Amino acid sequence: MYEVNAPPAGVAAALPVDERFMTLALEQAAGGLGRTAPNPPVGCVIVQGDELVGRGFHPRAGEPHAEVFALQGAGERARGATAYVTLEPCSHHGRTPPCADALIAAGVRRVVVAALDPNPLVAGRGVQRLREAGIEVTVGVLEAQAERQQAGFRSLIVRGRPWVVAKYAMTLDGKVAALREGNGAVSGPQAREHTMRWRDELDAIAVGSGTLGLDDPALTTRGVPGGRDPRPVVFDRRAASRPQARAWRDGAVLVTTPDSDASAHEAAGITVLRAGTPADALSGLAGLGVSSMLLEGGPTLLSAFLAQGLVDEVRVFVSTKLLGAGLSPLTAPARPMHEAQELHEVTVEPLGPDVLITGLLHDIPRV
Amino acid sequence: MYEVNAPPAGVAAALPVDERFMTLALEQAAGGLGRTAPNPPVGCVIVQGDELVGRGFHPRAGEPHAEVFALQGAGERARGATAYVTLEPCSHHGRTPPCADALIAAGVRRVVVAALDPNPLVAGRGVQRLREAGIEVTVGVLEAQAERQQAGFRSLIVRGRPWVVAKYAMTLDGKVAALREGNGAVSGPQAREHTMRWRDELDAIAVGSGTLGLDDPALTTRGVPGGRDPRPVVFDRRAASRPQARAWRDGAVLVTTPDSDASAHEAAGITVLRAGTPADALSGLAGLGVSSMLLEGGPTLLSAFLAQGLVDEVRVFVSTKLLGAGLSPLTAPARPMHEAQELHEVTVEPLGPDVLITGLLHDIPRV
Repeated sequence: MYEVNAPPAGVAAALPVDERFMTLALEQAAGGLGRTAPNPPVGCVIVQGDELVGRGFHPRAGEPHAEVFALQGAGERARGATAYVTLEPCSHHGRTPPCADALIAAGVRRVVVAALDPNPLVAGRGVQRLREAGIEVTVGVLEAQAERQQAGFRSLIVRGRPWVVAKYAMTLDGKVAALREGNGAVSGPQAREHTMRWRDELDAIAVGSGTLGLDDPALTTRGVPGGRDPRPVVFDRRAASRPQARAWRDGAVLVTTPDSDASAHEAAGITVLRAGTPADALSGLAGLGVSSMLLEGGPTLLSAFLAQGLVDEVRVFVSTKLLGAGLSPLTAPARPMHEAQELHEVTVEPLGPDVLITGLLHDIPRV
Repeated sequence: MYEVNAPPAGVAAALPVDERFMTLALEQAAGGLGRTAPNPPVGCVIVQGDELVGRGFHPRAGEPHAEVFALQGAGERARGATAYVTLEPCSHHGRTPPCADALIAAGVRRVVVAALDPNPLVAGRGVQRLREAGIEVTVGVLEAQAERQQAGFRSLIVRGRPWVVAKYAMTLDGKVAALREGNGAVSGPQAREHTMRWRDELDAIAVGSGTLGLDDPALTTRGVPGGRDPRPVVFDRRAASRPQARAWRDGAVLVTTPDSDASAHEAAGITVLRAGTPADALSGLAGLGVSSMLLEGGPTLLSAFLAQGLVDEVRVFVSTKLLGAGLSPLTAPARPMHEAQELHEVTVEPLGPDVLITGLLHDIPRV
């Protein structure tokens, strides 16, 4: 059951929670995915009786929080209403005033929260502040969905590194590419649409120098209405990739070793991040405000991350065709079968000629 | 719509078909899977009004056909009844008298047939004989399911070779085995249960000499009530495998090249089949009455069959874990991606920690 504080004297027993409104709040929050780092994506809806009277989401760091937009929309109808918020309202003065105070000032009667804020500056204090003001607070409604949506923010706050999502498409015999050149992608158009949506929703996209050299990929978001491009991150130990490659657009990051010669890239205005290990690279990327990263690189990059335990989530398109000889998605580490890393929270979805299988290797960081 | 003959004069319009009875007939037929070759698995139920009054299946070659058992069960209540049969009743004298005649003699009013018999000795003549006797005949009810169940028989009759089902289990990074020894199977207990059921249902099970040498597998059916073991078929070009291996039980077949020295195997009473190519081997196995074969061998055997276009159906367990370095299910042929072989009639089923993906590479042989 959800955690609810006892209703203050003179107020009727706890009102029923309608999860559909939290679903709407989560849909609102999704509008900020890939745009709010280092802040979380947050959505809020204000409900008066059964009527939705306000909604909003946090569009990007430095702009108002979700609650502010929702309260603006509700106006006077916020008085006595219920606010559904995907993350605990903040209680501290950051770039904007505390949202808990805004909800109190608007006369909201109840606040329903999906998940507590893992930020040590908030971490329950937002809820406490609301309760002290006599507002009924319910915590934990669609909590798992909310935490999943906030994986990047939570990873940044709790672990000091981005949430890493490995994505690849392979044939039913486990090949991500053929050894002989030819036309045709591994997976179909629905898989491509999903990938483009993920590029829109995650802060960064990472490839290795091998992929850069072979394919010269644009690493952009295409075909998503209102979409924006993720920040390209190229792992290139020798800093040998061409500074003219298409990936080197504004904001692109070259990750290389501490002692490689990246002067050509620096001269071209590319951000150079020097890291001895993939873990160091992730810390450095966190410092640049990257809260989530889509690992779209080839087997070398993916193997390096997996061997270090740095892949948090996996999204694999399994294409229902057989190739024969070809490139494997992973070529290391050399473990015995009983040490294979098992996914949890697995989902399976047929997608045209492909099957999308997703799962987590690590838990979503919590408070 | 189904194909129905015009009702004879004095008889009411075509009766409605109840597919549930054909489902029961298919369930009956399944009792003969793996036991009837070179005959088909066939099931029959007799329905009087809405009541099931008889049921039966063909248990093995040389024993009575499904219709005979069902009519025996129905007795006098077969008169005026409807018979649901998964395959067109035979019209020729084989080892048993024609089933069409038995249905006519029992006074059955209507016969509902799932699929026509591809055997040129029958091929529509069974239906014709029934119609000539004034029986209403409906053809094509749950036809696709029936044809799938009869894939082995159909392959043997139409193509002169067994229906070949390739089965393997791989990790989500496409590995069927680790490079380092250790405990743990690729897939979970549900996958094992499915595999054992398939071993019970298919005539033969094939492995290569590599698998035999590494694992010394028993290739038996375990944990299936009333199960029977498939015929072991070992592909061993050099005839170098130990004649003491567990696979060499009664009925086992060694497939080797025309000029290899298989005297030790012959001396041990093992059936030796000499074939220059996998296609020749399949013809030879057909001659031994093998109508269906589960290909459980390693990458070498599977690659050889796939390269020659000799895999008809694929059943893959995708385990939701990541291994790293390992063995791929297929290592040849070296095709470009656009020449990958696409599956059709795909099914996707989550099975505990695994996902079962099945599909066809060839159509089920028809009339």
